[in-house]
Amino acid sequence: MLSKNQIKRIRALHRKKNRREQGLFLVEGEKMVAELLASSWPIESLYATEEFTHQYAAAINHKRANVFPATANNLATVGTLVTNNAAIAIVPIPTTAESPSPAQMQGEWVLALDSINDPGNLGALLRVADWYGIRHIVCSPNTAELHNPKVISASKGSFLRVTTHYLALEDYFRSLPSDTTVLGAYLEGDNIHTYSPSSQGGVLVMGSEAHGIHPSLAPYITHPITIPAFGQAESLNVAIATAIICDNLRRKKNS
Amino acid sequence: MLSKNQIKRIRALHRKKNRREQGLFLVEGEKMVAELLASSWPIESLYATEEFTHQYAAAINHKRANVFPATANNLATVGTLVTNNAAIAIVPIPTTAESPSPAQMQGEWVLALDSINDPGNLGALLRVADWYGIRHIVCSPNTAELHNPKVISASKGSFLRVTTHYLALEDYFRSLPSDTTVLGAYLEGDNIHTYSPSSQGGVLVMGSEAHGIHPSLAPYITHPITIPAFGQAESLNVAIATAIICDNLRRKKNS
Repeated sequence: MLSKNQIKRIRALHRKKNRREQGLFLVEGEKMVAELLASSWPIESLYATEEFTHQYAAAINHKRANVFPATANNLATVGTLVTNNAAIAIVPIPTTAESPSPAQMQGEWVLALDSINDPGNLGALLRVADWYGIRHIVCSPNTAELHNPKVISASKGSFLRVTTHYLALEDYFRSLPSDTTVLGAYLEGDNIHTYSPSSQGGVLVMGSEAHGIHPSLAPYITHPITIPAFGQAESLNVAIATAIICDNLRRKKNS
Repeated sequence: MLSKNQIKRIRALHRKKNRREQGLFLVEGEKMVAELLASSWPIESLYATEEFTHQYAAAINHKRANVFPATANNLATVGTLVTNNAAIAIVPIPTTAESPSPAQMQGEWVLALDSINDPGNLGALLRVADWYGIRHIVCSPNTAELHNPKVISASKGSFLRVTTHYLALEDYFRSLPSDTTVLGAYLEGDNIHTYSPSSQGGVLVMGSEAHGIHPSLAPYITHPITIPAFGQAESLNVAIATAIICDNLRRKKNS
């Protein structure tokens, strides 16, 4: 039931270049679009099945979203998900937020990601940050693009609550007060089980599984930390390692 | 440089049915095949680039593996990885190990997986188990198949060290001594940060993100546990949740 133009419009947003140029991205699937409708985010247009439109009529009305009817087959054909019997929303990319100022992050933890280029990992990291109440992620420019459909999908809606900033991490670290705690995850560092985090919060830096934290960032790390291993695996996935470290940081703050 | 028959043989093992019938599976990529060569596992045949064969000559010799020359292009075409400039091994599926007996698991933790059907998640869970020194995983029969190339790849070699058993979980639980600790991860349970695990070890049961632990298993859970949230994400990925719980279980045992 979608017109040729509508199909073209949605498909164009599979590509980063078009997302950049048009300032739009896609949110797909029932749970994600339902969370979007419940949020304060604007929706540029919504392609939805009759069933979805009926079920979420109140939220759609409240948001005054432009709804275009689509079949599940339409949605699967034009979207990036294998199946989608609910909805696809076209959403304006919010204007770039400034990086979190030191005053804003008082008592909070900021997650800094160096060269995390797998979109699934970035999405999982957003979800972990959201679980542990981290409101800001700063990413090196070569980290995966936030509005990639795989990132949005893997974030399970957490992109709505966690703000992601892209900037040269060296610049970000230089902008911080000199007494800021900057933890860096390394294979050899202080045991996170016994490390006592600052109640002032700080920054947690995670590098890629393949290359770790770039050596140029090492001067800014005030505390190298590590997750103790009890078996023989060589490493952990970056989203898993981040979750374990956040769990330790939060546990200690509250005990 | 591969013959038509060799190509057919490797490709056949992309499918579960053929892996079952032939009792063989694939191990792909440099790091994984290198770990395989360094392990005690047998190799049925090895397809490798000249460079890989040269670099791992000692290990290949030691294992008396049958090596067939292949180009990177060959390997990418017949394998499941997008790129592979190293090797593919055909490996015999080990005869099914019996489920870990209570005597074997004294002081250890066994991971029990209920209906984890995403292969990437199962692979990540093997890696987490390996990091935390868990030697046995028991899986409900509808959990993803261990020898699926996506599981093997996501396990990053941990399939070599962690033994995975498929069986009706009810039968497994009934076989345990009545004083066995059986932890179950729920959204509402005892806080894992303050829960003191038994030094006798036990079983940790994880369900799928979508459905949780099946209600039929509830009677066997002695301690429902939960990971405290500090933000607004609704849930965590199952491999991430398992890693956080294992980290808490290990930390307490050693403090």
